[in-house]
Amino acid sequence: MQNAWIISIGTELTLGQSVDTNAVWLARRLAEIGHRCDRHITAPDDLEPLVDTLRQAAAQADAVVVSGGLGPTDDDLTRVALARVAGVELAPNARSLAQIRAFFERRGRAMPERNAVQALLPRGAQAIENTCGSAPGVLLRLERALVFALPGVPFEMKRMFERDVAPRLSADSHGDVLLSRRLNCIGKGESDIGELLGDLMRRGANPEVGTTAELGTIGVRINAAGETRAIAEARLEKTEAEARRRLGALVFGRDEETLADAVGALLHACGTTLATAESCTGGLIGKLLTDTPGSSAYFKGAVVAYANEAKVELLGVDPAALRQHGAVSPEVAEQMACGARRRLGADFALSATGIAGPGGGTAAKPVGLVYIGLADGAGVQARELRYGADAPREAIRLRAANTALNLLRLRLLG
Amino acid sequence: MQNAWIISIGTELTLGQSVDTNAVWLARRLAEIGHRCDRHITAPDDLEPLVDTLRQAAAQADAVVVSGGLGPTDDDLTRVALARVAGVELAPNARSLAQIRAFFERRGRAMPERNAVQALLPRGAQAIENTCGSAPGVLLRLERALVFALPGVPFEMKRMFERDVAPRLSADSHGDVLLSRRLNCIGKGESDIGELLGDLMRRGANPEVGTTAELGTIGVRINAAGETRAIAEARLEKTEAEARRRLGALVFGRDEETLADAVGALLHACGTTLATAESCTGGLIGKLLTDTPGSSAYFKGAVVAYANEAKVELLGVDPAALRQHGAVSPEVAEQMACGARRRLGADFALSATGIAGPGGGTAAKPVGLVYIGLADGAGVQARELRYGADAPREAIRLRAANTALNLLRLRLLG
Repeated sequence: MQNAWIISIGTELTLGQSVDTNAVWLARRLAEIGHRCDRHITAPDDLEPLVDTLRQAAAQADAVVVSGGLGPTDDDLTRVALARVAGVELAPNARSLAQIRAFFERRGRAMPERNAVQALLPRGAQAIENTCGSAPGVLLRLERALVFALPGVPFEMKRMFERDVAPRLSADSHGDVLLSRRLNCIGKGESDIGELLGDLMRRGANPEVGTTAELGTIGVRINAAGETRAIAEARLEKTEAEARRRLGALVFGRDEETLADAVGALLHACGTTLATAESCTGGLIGKLLTDTPGSSAYFKGAVVAYANEAKVELLGVDPAALRQHGAVSPEVAEQMACGARRRLGADFALSATGIAGPGGGTAAKPVGLVYIGLADGAGVQARELRYGADAPREAIRLRAANTALNLLRLRLLG
Repeated sequence: MQNAWIISIGTELTLGQSVDTNAVWLARRLAEIGHRCDRHITAPDDLEPLVDTLRQAAAQADAVVVSGGLGPTDDDLTRVALARVAGVELAPNARSLAQIRAFFERRGRAMPERNAVQALLPRGAQAIENTCGSAPGVLLRLERALVFALPGVPFEMKRMFERDVAPRLSADSHGDVLLSRRLNCIGKGESDIGELLGDLMRRGANPEVGTTAELGTIGVRINAAGETRAIAEARLEKTEAEARRRLGALVFGRDEETLADAVGALLHACGTTLATAESCTGGLIGKLLTDTPGSSAYFKGAVVAYANEAKVELLGVDPAALRQHGAVSPEVAEQMACGARRRLGADFALSATGIAGPGGGTAAKPVGLVYIGLADGAGVQARELRYGADAPREAIRLRAANTALNLLRLRLLG
């Protein structure tokens, strides 16, 4: 495979004041088209580090994608640095200038004069057209490396990468391809999943298999290399099939598919509907379910009964059960689920009540104790979950929400 | 200020399969203790790139923080690379070995033999104790740079940084300090806020002021440098006061304070309570409110009425209004807010109903049309919001939720 470097420009990035989302996206896309990212360097808006970084990349990389530093202000130095490393002057590009003027005209404004610097190009370089912003990109060869400089705005960068960079690099990649896939799992920990995958995870294998723990879910990554896309795909599919065979119902989805997407697809396929009754999760389960477009087909709604009176008034929880067992109890979790199912007229209902912390815990009911309930036409069940009392509030809430969704998923799978 | 480099090690990082959260955290903490991060380099689990990167850092940086590559497996190469650059051998450190054994014993296990490699240190280096994991860190000088190698696990890295790295680097920083603060704003766009800040944003000023657009909110960053912490703090506070004077009620919070935190603090201070009635936001407003610990003091609950029957049954929306105006209408938004306020017994209620897309839009009611409602003892009002039909579902939902929360914030501010 070809060797690519990614260079991100911006003092807000080196100082940790903004998070660079471009690099992760670029690294994945580069791998898919046969360029393995071997270095990612973030440099501030200063000329010297930028020149220094470009010199190294020119000597060591086959392809370089730079993002950022193409704006119209004094701290936008990518054009100057490229010209310096190439040992040439900057000169205005008439076509780019016309495109920048047209960009402003479409928005009903005259081009501010300072934007004219964005049409400067190192002599011998080509402009990469930007159809959705004012900064054109730059394409030039520096020693070994083919360098593409793109704007830092993610939307513009991605459009330009897909339209002009990817086709050019795909042609250069000598047919080598790296394809990746992630199987999303829930129900066991990372080491148990590692155990099940066994020899698939041996180092140096192709495809390469690795695991990553998220909050309550485990990602199984499969990277397959091949001389052509078809070969890599065949390897990927073979390993995916074997991993799925070993992991069974632990796998709920692939790549960006969420647990809520998976539950939604099952509900939709069965023609059934769902409601939720949420206390400690505060609407998170409903939010996760409605992240999925089209969820109105199976999601009836949620009652977020944070206060006890709301549990009684809106979900019909028995005040005696609240007095006797407390709001965080299996009895109340069950009554909440039954109430939501009845009031919202759904086939299934999930509930969650617990102590998300950091305050509110006692010796008998510590922070991290959560009860989830699942009601359907046949009855209701509650389950106790215990997370460490030092787990962050967000982690407790998300793990509880995911565990509740998984309880329903396993029920729907039969 | 001293010049620091951050080096992150891991093929999963260079390939974009995991997101590096350590670097952002390290860059911020380094700035606070007088070390300005000038380069962040991510290298794969291979010896050559790692040695190459460490050599450059040794020549150019005052301080280097490496994270990752200290595990017990063959692809953990940080120790080997450090020894190579220092030109020394690796030798076992008896104290580290004893600590690793003790770590496993505390978990009721014998140390696997392969973990013994984690006690190897380049000759002349010091071990940095890891109290919550098996990988000790490494401290050594390479030419100009003081190098700290820490594990990649965020929790362990942060503990070790605070306990051993920060005190050592603070002593080295010759008193120079960079302090940062963010003012979180809502209600106007980035260019309007830039206009209001005017000369505060001039380039090269100290403090330096910049803006970043998030989804519906704008962050105003202030970076103040000073010879001592007290000097930097005084500069920061003066500029913060001036920025707040110019921005007025646009500012809702500072640093990590969210809009839901700010609304919660106001509700709490007034001794009043809130409920929500959510359709297109699907529980997101409730989720945002209950992200704040202690929100049970003022948040009564939410009714997520995704289906029309739920709007009628749980919120008392008039079926005739649904037929006549449709679910996405100011009339229904108002009735939803009134219903949630009454049913949940709250002082205030917010509602949201709209078309989050990508499907479900019509010419009259396109994707991105949302109505929000606010009810209190005096009555109810609805407001129409229009987002571009090509805005992503998540953006429409989050902007609508934030606009609803801001409507209440401005009401509470009077």
